[in-house]
Amino acid sequence: MRPIIPLLMALLAGASIAARAADTPPARLVILDDDGFSLAQWMVLKAKDVTVLGECTVSGDVWQKEATAQALRGLEIAGRTDVKVYPGATYPLLNSEKLTDRWEALYGKLTWRGAWMKQWVEPTKQKLPPYHGPDVVPDLPQGNPHTRPADESAAAFMIRMVHRYPGQVSIVETGPMTNLALAQKLDPQFASLAKELVYMGGSLNPRRVLASPESADFAREFANSPRREFNIRFDPEAASITMRAPWRRIVMVPVDPSTATEMSDALVKRLSAADTPIARALRGPASHFPLWDEITTAVWLDPSLITGSHELYIDTNTAFSAGYGDILSWTPGYQPDLDEQREQVVLSVDVGRLETLMVGLVSRP
Amino acid sequence: MRPIIPLLMALLAGASIAARAADTPPARLVILDDDGFSLAQWMVLKAKDVTVLGECTVSGDVWQKEATAQALRGLEIAGRTDVKVYPGATYPLLNSEKLTDRWEALYGKLTWRGAWMKQWVEPTKQKLPPYHGPDVVPDLPQGNPHTRPADESAAAFMIRMVHRYPGQVSIVETGPMTNLALAQKLDPQFASLAKELVYMGGSLNPRRVLASPESADFAREFANSPRREFNIRFDPEAASITMRAPWRRIVMVPVDPSTATEMSDALVKRLSAADTPIARALRGPASHFPLWDEITTAVWLDPSLITGSHELYIDTNTAFSAGYGDILSWTPGYQPDLDEQREQVVLSVDVGRLETLMVGLVSRP
Repeated sequence: MRPIIPLLMALLAGASIAARAADTPPARLVILDDDGFSLAQWMVLKAKDVTVLGECTVSGDVWQKEATAQALRGLEIAGRTDVKVYPGATYPLLNSEKLTDRWEALYGKLTWRGAWMKQWVEPTKQKLPPYHGPDVVPDLPQGNPHTRPADESAAAFMIRMVHRYPGQVSIVETGPMTNLALAQKLDPQFASLAKELVYMGGSLNPRRVLASPESADFAREFANSPRREFNIRFDPEAASITMRAPWRRIVMVPVDPSTATEMSDALVKRLSAADTPIARALRGPASHFPLWDEITTAVWLDPSLITGSHELYIDTNTAFSAGYGDILSWTPGYQPDLDEQREQVVLSVDVGRLETLMVGLVSRP
Repeated sequence: MRPIIPLLMALLAGASIAARAADTPPARLVILDDDGFSLAQWMVLKAKDVTVLGECTVSGDVWQKEATAQALRGLEIAGRTDVKVYPGATYPLLNSEKLTDRWEALYGKLTWRGAWMKQWVEPTKQKLPPYHGPDVVPDLPQGNPHTRPADESAAAFMIRMVHRYPGQVSIVETGPMTNLALAQKLDPQFASLAKELVYMGGSLNPRRVLASPESADFAREFANSPRREFNIRFDPEAASITMRAPWRRIVMVPVDPSTATEMSDALVKRLSAADTPIARALRGPASHFPLWDEITTAVWLDPSLITGSHELYIDTNTAFSAGYGDILSWTPGYQPDLDEQREQVVLSVDVGRLETLMVGLVSRP
């Protein structure tokens, strides 16, 4: 009879979330999945009428264990240790550091290799992160976490949540899609039971927009490879599995809208002005990064920030060739009809309103 | 002893071209290779101080036999039957109509299939050319030719010319590169003996610039496949062989500069105003095509028309996958160093001066 107890608990938890006064909008349920932790996640944690069911982690920019530590520490700073961290995949499905070396020998150097980055090809204003193995967790700039991750894997947790709240859970993915692919292959109902997938990943036809020297550094990532973006390129097979799963709705935030945005000195000043733990944690030198992940959580929080988008069929090239991990897109009518899905592809956002939203959220007590 | 006679003739022919008064620039020697015949070729035929050694033809937009008929007729209209037409390859090296059907089933519909085009995917303002086999030559709008092509193949002719005038022959390619690849594999010295290769082909990151409805039709070709262009996609293996050959100099004219140009009503009016055979032949409804080939011959005639270009290493993706025939490019330092060459990639041209040059050339008596 044991299985009945978790089931009852689940029903009660669902009821407690649904039971609100008629004039209060029901809380939006979201799972965040990322290869790190940043302002993007804090924004969601501070938003009204949002319930973060859990923070999942995956390898990408850094190894999963480091991403998990970052997420734990981020939640501590936000005073939200009620939200649990679910560790996800350490390795991509097929891709590996060795395969990346071989791929580069055949097809040319990548600008960014994430956890496998050893050196820049050209001088850049970005810092070179330390190179280490998957089990090493360097000391975090914000201090090391005191809390511990959950015992459940990211994929198992996400499957459990979409069954508990069918049609209600948004998944906001800002890292490689390894956990999503594992969840879909563990449970073919997974994607269809979620409310939607909103992800930062891929690239269509981005163009440099800003004048800063850092924007020139980031333009190197797409000038000669307009369809390549790191989150997707790190685990192309997981991306294709995820993109061909039967989601009710998919919103793609590719590199394209991010080239008009930057974590500038001025923006850091505005973000860190308030006397809140998050605002204090944001103080320091500006990264000048495009706001890839912040755009993604922002358009989930407020879709009216989107000023331009296309409806396209999307998949990922999984052939181990020069285009490995490249985004494939089709105007409706041209797609091969091999389960690729129609996605809303965000091409531009209202940058002024985006920044105002970001500042407002991190300034909340 | 027979071989001596052609050799002597060759030496004499070379001498006659080189022997000019000291104040006269030596004629520039050029071979034109195309999957048709158009204004682009007439421009070169009317240019001063240029010797067109021959017109080569290849399958692409139309089959080689039709392209050969077009070239013969074009030379007759220009009163230049002294220039011979050398028929080239009928079929690409590996690609075929059947393979294209299979590729589309896996990776989605192409917008343009050239000689293999049966129907448009979407309604377009472009005419649907008649579908027929390689040996059918439909009646030409400009009338059928009365002259006949040479007995020598395009590849053999080009090899012969670069040996006769080492370091002096420019090759201007405005169709698929099948003949160039055959020439290079017939004679490994071929590319290194030419002066330069200037070609229309490939695509980097084009963007729609003009407002005409036709420019929207042509933008369909690159919106979802920024690296795909027909000349290269029709014979990707030939393109890669050609691009990895040891040319002294390569100038690439991709789709990118063409989006700012159009064979508009106004331009047709200017081009057809003079009372010359070519101007008269240009009368009729405007095609509204981008000036792909005209840019290419124009920047060979006058490189100062180029307003923006990059030096990039270039190759073609030959993996039979979604990226088959896509352009691969690398900023120096990122290339894999597998014999890909550094090319001058034309990104923009002075459209006003381009049009003036075109009008001036076709108006010459």
